[in-house]
Amino acid sequence: MVDAAVRPTTTPTETNDAETPQIDVDAVNELLLGTWADTRRQAREMIKDPAFWRKDELGMDEHRERVLSQLHLLVENGAVHRAFPKEFGGEENNGANIAGFEELVVVDPSLQIKSGVQWGLFGSAVLQLGTKEHHAKWLPGIMNLEIPGAFAMTEMGHGSDVAAIGTTATYDPETEEFVIHTPFRAAWKEFLGNAALHGIAATVFAQLITNGVNHGVHCFYVPLSDEEGNDLPGIGREDDGLKGGLNGIDNGRLHFDHVRIPRTNLLNRYGDVAPDGTYSSAIDSPGRRFFTMLGTLVQGRVSLDGAASWASALGLYIAITYATQRRQFDGADGAEVVLLDYGKHQRRLLPRLATTYAQIFAHDEFLQKFDGVFSGRTDTPDDREDLETLAAALKPLSTWHALDTLQEAREACGGAGFMFENRLVGLRQDLDIYVTFEGDNNVLLQLVGKRLLTDYAKQFQGKDAAALAKFAVEQTAGKVFHGAGLRQFGQAVADLGSTARSVEKGLREEQQHELLSDRVQQMVSDIAGRLRLGAKDRALGARLFNENQAELIEAARAHGELLQWEAFTDAVRSIEDAETKKVLTWLRDLFGLQLIEKHLAWHLINGRLSTQRAAAVSSYIDRLCGRLRPYALDLVNAFGYEPEHVRAPLASGAEAERQDEARAYYADLAASGKAPVQEKALKKAKR
Amino acid sequence: MVDAAVRPTTTPTETNDAETPQIDVDAVNELLLGTWADTRRQAREMIKDPAFWRKDELGMDEHRERVLSQLHLLVENGAVHRAFPKEFGGEENNGANIAGFEELVVVDPSLQIKSGVQWGLFGSAVLQLGTKEHHAKWLPGIMNLEIPGAFAMTEMGHGSDVAAIGTTATYDPETEEFVIHTPFRAAWKEFLGNAALHGIAATVFAQLITNGVNHGVHCFYVPLSDEEGNDLPGIGREDDGLKGGLNGIDNGRLHFDHVRIPRTNLLNRYGDVAPDGTYSSAIDSPGRRFFTMLGTLVQGRVSLDGAASWASALGLYIAITYATQRRQFDGADGAEVVLLDYGKHQRRLLPRLATTYAQIFAHDEFLQKFDGVFSGRTDTPDDREDLETLAAALKPLSTWHALDTLQEAREACGGAGFMFENRLVGLRQDLDIYVTFEGDNNVLLQLVGKRLLTDYAKQFQGKDAAALAKFAVEQTAGKVFHGAGLRQFGQAVADLGSTARSVEKGLREEQQHELLSDRVQQMVSDIAGRLRLGAKDRALGARLFNENQAELIEAARAHGELLQWEAFTDAVRSIEDAETKKVLTWLRDLFGLQLIEKHLAWHLINGRLSTQRAAAVSSYIDRLCGRLRPYALDLVNAFGYEPEHVRAPLASGAEAERQDEARAYYADLAASGKAPVQEKALKKAKR
Repeated sequence: MVDAAVRPTTTPTETNDAETPQIDVDAVNELLLGTWADTRRQAREMIKDPAFWRKDELGMDEHRERVLSQLHLLVENGAVHRAFPKEFGGEENNGANIAGFEELVVVDPSLQIKSGVQWGLFGSAVLQLGTKEHHAKWLPGIMNLEIPGAFAMTEMGHGSDVAAIGTTATYDPETEEFVIHTPFRAAWKEFLGNAALHGIAATVFAQLITNGVNHGVHCFYVPLSDEEGNDLPGIGREDDGLKGGLNGIDNGRLHFDHVRIPRTNLLNRYGDVAPDGTYSSAIDSPGRRFFTMLGTLVQGRVSLDGAASWASALGLYIAITYATQRRQFDGADGAEVVLLDYGKHQRRLLPRLATTYAQIFAHDEFLQKFDGVFSGRTDTPDDREDLETLAAALKPLSTWHALDTLQEAREACGGAGFMFENRLVGLRQDLDIYVTFEGDNNVLLQLVGKRLLTDYAKQFQGKDAAALAKFAVEQTAGKVFHGAGLRQFGQAVADLGSTARSVEKGLREEQQHELLSDRVQQMVSDIAGRLRLGAKDRALGARLFNENQAELIEAARAHGELLQWEAFTDAVRSIEDAETKKVLTWLRDLFGLQLIEKHLAWHLINGRLSTQRAAAVSSYIDRLCGRLRPYALDLVNAFGYEPEHVRAPLASGAEAERQDEARAYYADLAASGKAPVQEKALKKAKR
Repeated sequence: MVDAAVRPTTTPTETNDAETPQIDVDAVNELLLGTWADTRRQAREMIKDPAFWRKDELGMDEHRERVLSQLHLLVENGAVHRAFPKEFGGEENNGANIAGFEELVVVDPSLQIKSGVQWGLFGSAVLQLGTKEHHAKWLPGIMNLEIPGAFAMTEMGHGSDVAAIGTTATYDPETEEFVIHTPFRAAWKEFLGNAALHGIAATVFAQLITNGVNHGVHCFYVPLSDEEGNDLPGIGREDDGLKGGLNGIDNGRLHFDHVRIPRTNLLNRYGDVAPDGTYSSAIDSPGRRFFTMLGTLVQGRVSLDGAASWASALGLYIAITYATQRRQFDGADGAEVVLLDYGKHQRRLLPRLATTYAQIFAHDEFLQKFDGVFSGRTDTPDDREDLETLAAALKPLSTWHALDTLQEAREACGGAGFMFENRLVGLRQDLDIYVTFEGDNNVLLQLVGKRLLTDYAKQFQGKDAAALAKFAVEQTAGKVFHGAGLRQFGQAVADLGSTARSVEKGLREEQQHELLSDRVQQMVSDIAGRLRLGAKDRALGARLFNENQAELIEAARAHGELLQWEAFTDAVRSIEDAETKKVLTWLRDLFGLQLIEKHLAWHLINGRLSTQRAAAVSSYIDRLCGRLRPYALDLVNAFGYEPEHVRAPLASGAEAERQDEARAYYADLAASGKAPVQEKALKKAKR
């Protein structure tokens, strides 16, 4: 800190010396845009139109109306019908549909989510859970927005535990109608987009009761209002009012007082009721039937994973661009230093950039899997289960990462980051709910954890006691071996001077993979071992599960991180240009190393890393940050955002202009000979 | 997960069996409210008046007007004059002033911060940097809000680096005026509360230039508008518009085009200019003079530390109250489980509760220190320096903690947490900027780190080469000793059955203190060692400092955490009631242990914990959470908030009512014999 007001010297903002590798930004952009790059480009081109842009100054009511009108614009642009049947003008292209939908997040998350409610949830429920008659009757109106609708699953009393909802649909064979009813306040449908104002119908989830038997949760098409817009008898709705974000969506509550709908309004693909009240389903088990129905709605989670990853990308584009222009505090040469040249600033932004790359690559694989299942190409029960596990593993990681990244980006831009026009705070407010809707992140990770435990247990199916005992011994031996021998990384680094290189050698691709995958396996095996005692005692089992809940969720997170790392590695392998591959390998290493650093204590406790090697992980990360620093701008430019997508004055180049103007002023002043002398310099001279 | 719709059994929400200790909630409340408990109670009583409450539905413009009118209410209530001189109707009570001010955060952070701008920054600048004439002339109008004012320090191009601001105040001896001027765009004053609309004057920081010499940054009183409310010639202002939060405050920009003010408008306590232009100051060093002037404005940081801690407290009150009422998923007994009975939910909320307690206790000590200095009782240069270091260490930790806690609280309340009426999102949006204003958190922690390095270096002052060499050997020996011997915790835990107790014995108060304090010392010593090479080469020194920047900031954080732990421990020691003391000791242990867990890799790498003991830290935390679970409600009730302060429907008891209603419905249905049979049960019966 100096109190000099004359700064004659300047340093170049960006140095990229000729000997360092150059990266092919276009090739990286192509890689990031992934399988449905064309659709993404098409969507990005469409939203350059200011008619789609969020107007920050609008109050809640105007914002809601604007977003509704933008939904009509989407219809006009043919942007939201890609997943629907060809016979109704769709393309039956599920992957492209999600890809295009995700891109809307950078224009206004309210627009993204409201269109998700209309076409991804309400429309999908009719498409996926209904049959031909339903499709013909309602899909055209849903697709062209003549029927705006709500997706009425969540209740005040039951969010994540959908099976336990209280709303009932009781069949009345005399009139051949279902009676939809809300038996108590906690069973009000809650937080539903389109429910406060715009929805004229809803897909309502309720316990199907016929002939005195409850067949579990099914979905019903329920009209809400008549042609004049008045609510039908028995329908009640309330406005949720102001939320923490997404205020362009009219979330609200619905309740039903013995509302009668025709028998045929049951969306009956997986379960039906005959006129006489006889229930039938092709899926015999009520549990499996329930999960099958819910599984058809997985696309919400798929799209949130992508949207959150691209929102992180935009946040980093803004913060890193600014960090290469903004200067603060003098460097050793007396000139003010660009923020991204500070070690701490690199540490704040570059590992998050690496994680964002990993998530975008992982998302594309995930989307391919989704497309395979929903196109029918690879649609087995195992594929569906894998897809759901993948969704439950990836959506939590990417949505939390988005909040963390947008916050760090905002802080890295200081007060300017807090100005609404610079996008970061608005995006964060809107994305906040992504971490708990479409499945609470912790509940989803717990599902993944349970799946990991099930898979683990399958290894022992059909094995006899002797085999199990042998396995147990091996486990113990493995543990001791790991703890004592440090097979992989056992060499003590004797010469301090070569630590850096030794560590790098010991923490390359193969070792990263082993550390990350071993951790998942070991954690699951440890938890399974601790849960075994409770296998035959329900109360003890519940207690043990509860004691291990936090760690099981942590194991699921480790599993998701491993998937991301593998996707990043596959993407890097596919790069042909050697220099680009080199830089992207550093970025992948940064992603892998920061994961290892985050869980360093675990690796130490479980003997996977020696203390010496562990101590060097952090400085390796620092070196990687320094090495990637010259490519930071290239790496965010590769996201492919144009000024119409960014729309943040902060990242427009205005800061660089201001800095240049200030420095030119001081240079001119110094040259003029009229610059005031510094008191400090004067005192020094007098001495 | 079950698909049963009949839930006949219930479990009690709160169990607090007679054999477990009971805590004295009133005594804990007294302890938390601290030294200025009476003032805090008085402020809380005042803000029960709905006239002070935030109206969420107001747009930015109306919100700004409402907050301005609330500032007048504060004047009427005599709530904001406690720090001002008695001759003008104040109380000269600095500690009480800050305590009362902090309490405003729960009514509306915009109100808190706007009153902070008026009386804590603008008013304080006149009080602390001005002299008698200034006080008499302006303080009465500032106190009664006839003169709303802005505090014009930050510029577009310079936030944290105040010494480098561009605005100039050039003395003109011919007219005996200063000419305030903005030489380029980056020197516009930016993000100033009261600048967009309400401010009619400002305390402007500018480079004081007289007789061709720049004497560094000084503060000037500059009228902005005339009695009709028109801006004076040369004054320009712009509205910052919508922000991420605090939208009840009219932040804006100011710029000056050769604005002339009388010589006597220089706030001349620390430096003056005679009519002929001669500069004089009692402080000879320009650097020390600058820091002395800025140091008088430390109260902003003091108050943010307290306000952030109390906002965390309110967030936890809301989330924990809800978590003891809300049920989700069936437990082993078939009844739905209260959220706070889940291991993961305890892990999410209880360590944050412990941290909030630590911060509130640390804040009271900090406020005592502040009061001592500003009352003149203990006002030496060393005290001032300590106070500033304390502020720089504590404000970052508590403001980041508030964001983290409010977010976790919001997520723990699911969708309901996202509703604006439930307070959590609004508080988080408003507090977002606390982490970068009044000193960017990272910059502040770096200041602390530098102070730690200076203190460390002082140990060697005047020592000869032999003494230094001896010290170096001891250091190395100490390191080896720690790494190999594990003096404190060396006993391997042989018997698995007694691990729990052994660990608890090895991680009690004394050991927690040693682990936390050793870490600070070791980190500082390690960094100092690495920086030593650069002592005589400025460029190398800068590079080394940059490479160690992230770790230095981490060391500063460790120092702050230690201070909080010590304050918590002192508070616990002061408790007389044995049972209360026991529970608060558990809470302190939870605070200490989660710090140790967070830095577990460090403790392992540096040989302070054996892997065995380290492995047990997490399960010890789990046990502490379980032990504290029955006291969770008591511990948040001890914050002393009443319904008028909480105002979150979520925590009003409405959730418990809904849950009770639902459970009564199912119980009645089961008793009536008319409940539908579950398909699953039917299938089982048929088998």
